[in-house]
Amino acid sequence: MQQNIVLTGDRPTGPLHLGHFVGSIRNRLSLQEKDKQFLMVADLQALTDHAREPEKVREAVFGVTLDNISCGVDPKKTVIFIQSQIPEIQELAFIFMNLVSVTRLEQNPTVKTEMKQKGMKDIVPAGFLVYPISQAADILSFKADFVPVGEDQLPMIEQTNEIVERFNNYYPATPLVFKKVKALVPNEGEGRLPGIDGKAKMGKSLGNAIYLSDSAREVEKKVMQMYTDPGHIHASDPGKIEGNIVFTYLAIFDPDQDAVTELKNKYQKGGLGDVEIKKRLIKVLNDTLEPIRIKRENLLKDKDFVRNVLKEGTEKAKDIVRQTFEEVNRAVKINYFT
Amino acid sequence: MQQNIVLTGDRPTGPLHLGHFVGSIRNRLSLQEKDKQFLMVADLQALTDHAREPEKVREAVFGVTLDNISCGVDPKKTVIFIQSQIPEIQELAFIFMNLVSVTRLEQNPTVKTEMKQKGMKDIVPAGFLVYPISQAADILSFKADFVPVGEDQLPMIEQTNEIVERFNNYYPATPLVFKKVKALVPNEGEGRLPGIDGKAKMGKSLGNAIYLSDSAREVEKKVMQMYTDPGHIHASDPGKIEGNIVFTYLAIFDPDQDAVTELKNKYQKGGLGDVEIKKRLIKVLNDTLEPIRIKRENLLKDKDFVRNVLKEGTEKAKDIVRQTFEEVNRAVKINYFT
Repeated sequence: MQQNIVLTGDRPTGPLHLGHFVGSIRNRLSLQEKDKQFLMVADLQALTDHAREPEKVREAVFGVTLDNISCGVDPKKTVIFIQSQIPEIQELAFIFMNLVSVTRLEQNPTVKTEMKQKGMKDIVPAGFLVYPISQAADILSFKADFVPVGEDQLPMIEQTNEIVERFNNYYPATPLVFKKVKALVPNEGEGRLPGIDGKAKMGKSLGNAIYLSDSAREVEKKVMQMYTDPGHIHASDPGKIEGNIVFTYLAIFDPDQDAVTELKNKYQKGGLGDVEIKKRLIKVLNDTLEPIRIKRENLLKDKDFVRNVLKEGTEKAKDIVRQTFEEVNRAVKINYFT
Repeated sequence: MQQNIVLTGDRPTGPLHLGHFVGSIRNRLSLQEKDKQFLMVADLQALTDHAREPEKVREAVFGVTLDNISCGVDPKKTVIFIQSQIPEIQELAFIFMNLVSVTRLEQNPTVKTEMKQKGMKDIVPAGFLVYPISQAADILSFKADFVPVGEDQLPMIEQTNEIVERFNNYYPATPLVFKKVKALVPNEGEGRLPGIDGKAKMGKSLGNAIYLSDSAREVEKKVMQMYTDPGHIHASDPGKIEGNIVFTYLAIFDPDQDAVTELKNKYQKGGLGDVEIKKRLIKVLNDTLEPIRIKRENLLKDKDFVRNVLKEGTEKAKDIVRQTFEEVNRAVKINYFT
C-alpha cells in the first residue's frame, strides 16, 4: 500500500513549548510510523513578520529542529528541511499568485485574525498578505495528502484546494498535476494546551509558556504560578475543576488518570490544597520532559548533528520538490529546455 | 574601467513591433557595445495577466528572442535568459515582500494605471499586485546599475530603490548587498512610437501595430491605412504635420531628414498627396525591416538556434543570480550550510 504524504511545519520564531508538544509534536511521532512525513522549518514564513530579527529566526531554525528530534521525531523517518533552501517552492508560489485575487486573500479569515492579533492594521507586509499562497506552495510542492492543522487554520487548506482546482483547470495534464489535500484536525478538546495563566492558548509572546527546554527548576517555578481557582483560598474550601489549568494539564499529561479523577473529586469537595496538586503536576511534567532533556543533551554532544540532519533532509526534500516543479513547468508550458 | 550592468526585458505576450524597436531594441544595440547587458524574457510576468494562455506565452518567449536577435541584439554581447528558469529570483522577491506594505503596492501609480487599462477592478490577481516587487527582484538579482524604462515605469524604479534602502537597513553587510539603480529614460519625444491609428501608443491589443515580422506587403497595407490629417482631402489642400503619423514615422525612420523637411513644407503649403508620402514611408520602413527579415530567415535555418541561445544565456544569468542570492542569504542569515 502506498504511504500517505504528510506535510507539517514549524515557524522558527523561538523555542517550542508544551503547547507545540501537545498540538503537533505528539502527532508527528505517530504519523512518522505509518506515513511519509515532511517537517518544514518555515524560516521564510517566520520572516514575514520577523523581518527585522533574522538572527532570532536563524537560531530558532536549529532550535526547533533540536526540539523536535529531542521529542522523538526521527530524522530517519521524517524528512526535516528548511523552507528557504528550496527556491522552487517560492517560484511555485509565484505561479499560484496569478490564480488568486487580492480580494480573496483579504477575506481569508486566518489572515484577518492574525493581522488583528499582530496589530498590523494598515502596514501589512505584502509577504504576510500572500502567505496563504505561499503555504499552498509548501503543501503542493510535496503533493501532500494530509496536513495536520488546528481548527483555525482550516481556511488555509480551503485556499490551497481552491488553488488546486484552478491550477488543474488552467493547466490540465494527464494525470492532473495536483490533487486536493485533506486537513488532519485534532479531536475536540485535544490539540490545544492553555497557557499557565489560563489563557486559551500557550504562546511565547504571551509569556505563559513552559518550554520543552525548560529545566526542572523552571518547570517547578512556572507550575507554582499556575492559574487554578481564584475562589479556592484555603485547602479546606471546595474548588472548581473547570478552568483550573492544573487539572487541565493533569488530564493531558498524567499517566494515572484514575488517580486524577480521585483528586478532582477531593478538590471539588474541599480538603485538597493547590500546592499538593501543583506538586503532582510538577512531577508529571518533569517525568515527561526529563527524557527529552536527556536526549537533547546527548544530541548536543555532536555539535554538527542538527545542521547535518537539516542538510540531508533539505537535499531529500529538494529532490521531491524538483519533481513536482518539473511537472508544473510542463503543465504551464514553461519547460523550454527539456 | 568596470562595465555598467544593464537589465532590460520583454514581456512575451506576442510578437514585437516597431514600437519596441524604437522604444527599446535600438537602445539595446548601443548599450551592448559598452555595457554588460542582460535581456530578460519575462515569462512569469507575462503569466500574471495571461495565466490562461500559457501556450501563447511560450510561443512568444521564442518569438521575442528571435525578434531581438534579428534586429541585432547579439547573444555574444547580451545575455538573453528566461525569467522562470531561475527560481532564486522568485525567492528574492519573497524576501522583498516582507519589506513592502500592501498599501504601498496599491498606491503604485504604474500598477494603478495598468489595472485600470486591463479592466481588472475587483479581480486583481495577487501576482499582478506584487509585480513591482517581482520586478525589483529581477533588477536586483543582477545588481543592475541601469534599467532602461519609459517615463511611465519610473515608479517601478522608485519602488526598487525603496526596497534597496530597506533591505540594506534591515540586513546590513559590508559591503552593502544592494545599491540603488538608475533609470535610463529616453529623451522627450524619443522612445515612444504612436500606433498607425494615431493613438499615443502602439500596442498589440490596440490592433495598431506594425510588427518586426510583418512582410513587405503587410507593411504596405498598414501604412496605406495610416492616420494623416483628416482635413487634407485633396493633394492640393494644405495639410497638417502635427499629429500626422506618417510624418512622425518619417522623422524617426527616414535617413534623409533634409528631404523630409522639404516634404513637410510642401505638405503644409498644399500640393502633396497622402499617397506620395505614404509610398515614401513604405519604402523607408521596408528598408529598415528588410535586413531584419533576412536575418530572421537565416536564423530560422537552424531550428535549435533560439533555444540554444536561451539555454546558454539562462545558464550564464543563473551564475550571476546565484552569487547575489548567496550574498542575500548571508545578510538575511539564512545561509545555514555554507
